[in-house]
Amino acid sequence: MSKYFLTGGSGFIGSHIVERLLKDGQSVTVYDNLVTGNRKLIEHHIGKSNFKFIEADILDVEALNKAMPGHDIVWHLAANTDIVKGNNNTDFDLKNCTIGTYNVLECMRKAGIKNLMFASSATVYGDMPPKPLAETDGPLLTISLYGAGKLAGEGLISAYCHLFDMRACIYRFGNVVGGNMWHGVIFDFIQKLKNNPKELDILGDGKQEKNFFMVEDCIEGMLTIYEKMEKDCDVFNLGTDTYSTITGVADIVSEEMGLKDVKYNYSGGSRGWRGDAPYVHFNIAKVKKLGWAPKHTSDEAVRIAAKRLIGKE
Amino acid sequence: MSKYFLTGGSGFIGSHIVERLLKDGQSVTVYDNLVTGNRKLIEHHIGKSNFKFIEADILDVEALNKAMPGHDIVWHLAANTDIVKGNNNTDFDLKNCTIGTYNVLECMRKAGIKNLMFASSATVYGDMPPKPLAETDGPLLTISLYGAGKLAGEGLISAYCHLFDMRACIYRFGNVVGGNMWHGVIFDFIQKLKNNPKELDILGDGKQEKNFFMVEDCIEGMLTIYEKMEKDCDVFNLGTDTYSTITGVADIVSEEMGLKDVKYNYSGGSRGWRGDAPYVHFNIAKVKKLGWAPKHTSDEAVRIAAKRLIGKE
Repeated sequence: MSKYFLTGGSGFIGSHIVERLLKDGQSVTVYDNLVTGNRKLIEHHIGKSNFKFIEADILDVEALNKAMPGHDIVWHLAANTDIVKGNNNTDFDLKNCTIGTYNVLECMRKAGIKNLMFASSATVYGDMPPKPLAETDGPLLTISLYGAGKLAGEGLISAYCHLFDMRACIYRFGNVVGGNMWHGVIFDFIQKLKNNPKELDILGDGKQEKNFFMVEDCIEGMLTIYEKMEKDCDVFNLGTDTYSTITGVADIVSEEMGLKDVKYNYSGGSRGWRGDAPYVHFNIAKVKKLGWAPKHTSDEAVRIAAKRLIGKE
Repeated sequence: MSKYFLTGGSGFIGSHIVERLLKDGQSVTVYDNLVTGNRKLIEHHIGKSNFKFIEADILDVEALNKAMPGHDIVWHLAANTDIVKGNNNTDFDLKNCTIGTYNVLECMRKAGIKNLMFASSATVYGDMPPKPLAETDGPLLTISLYGAGKLAGEGLISAYCHLFDMRACIYRFGNVVGGNMWHGVIFDFIQKLKNNPKELDILGDGKQEKNFFMVEDCIEGMLTIYEKMEKDCDVFNLGTDTYSTITGVADIVSEEMGLKDVKYNYSGGSRGWRGDAPYVHFNIAKVKKLGWAPKHTSDEAVRIAAKRLIGKE
């Protein structure tokens, strides 16, 4: 049994990881400020002997230094998840991602904790050229402050691994989807269509190509990489090498909601908003070499997530 | 005439830029906390009508907001320059590079200043594979907190350019050398050989391969890129595509000091210290396409810098 410390453990992805780890008989501490996270997703575990919940912020260094020692592995997921909010409040990702990640690393160093898993993002690539990008591709000119925060986190982590003999997996996620979501395009489309089943406002021209990725696949991929990674610090694209268009997502959501002839109103332009990369195709050969591949295509992931959110599954 | 605002303008590279800009008839404000910078390098300009010196820190947001408005171009050079110090004081580069760069960008945004030049570094590449790296190479797993600070700065800058319609040149420097240096391997070797002309302690095995780069070439390169760059935000390797070994540097310095049969004592190991990349070869095809190339090879740059520091030139 290992002792896991999950920052952001009551968020969408975090809460799925908690379920998985507890099922595997691991010990889990969730450290979450509940700003993005949701207590309902983890409160059914409270009282279990191998589960602990601490409501606190990664910017609260004192609380972090008190809570983290004694754990074996830190799974660092805490971050802002709203890219537009981060662009409008320019110090939000600087604090909650960059400085937060520094605090986590510094606390690990002081507590002698050597193992880290970090949720980075495809956003570090910025506007992608029209080809699937691999981890060896640069120059990583991100177009959102969320992406800048993730990139800064990657740099801090790789430096700490080299300087202080830590081991870290950096995961660049595609668009992770599943149940328990309360943000993102699938969730938004469902809310909009519940309000008005005849028309749907779509940001951009709908031709944006994104790789959507099932949260269970994501967790399986992270655990495989953690187990099999050879270097002390390495970075992996974690997503699918398939993609869905945003109009395609609207089609799947409409279909699963039993709606026909929904009129799509496009706001126009190639990207949904400033800071949104319209084209996100991954080369996932590196993680496949470790013997893992996603079980679901992007369209399948969108459909399953839609079903769960609608309550059909 | 443009109005330049130089953070770190009284440092080694900054002071050379000041000379060049004043010679070109530009207006220059140097904003420097004099922690790394040296007042002697710029004080002969004080009193000139097109020159202004402000002793203040980029972490002092109030002073920055007071000083920056009214300028056309920000040349952001202020940073820690001591990689080992940054590794030993883990929040030093976070503050002086990452947060400092955020402060500069935020101040530019508020003041409506659109043009930025940023001194980044080869250190963002981390441990390089045995081939010359281009800007399109990743994954940018840096091995020093200095490098992490520069990478974080790059991410913030590219995000600000996209979100707030700024224009920025990001320069990844090789090992810039020249007169006015008071740190770096050439300066250190000269100091050591002045103390003991018979023996020289060398960090690592002496086989490290670095590209040394004449400061005048560096400034010319930066100005060329600023003038000719097509994108709103882009990154350029700026150095030579030649290299010198550390033992080769010792040979050149010894020769220029008129010393023979100096005994080299190697500390051993492939790198000089933790966080030191032993192999730094640049592919500089991208900047060459803009019509610029360094006038001096790496060995020539080392020799000229050594001569200047010894006082022979």
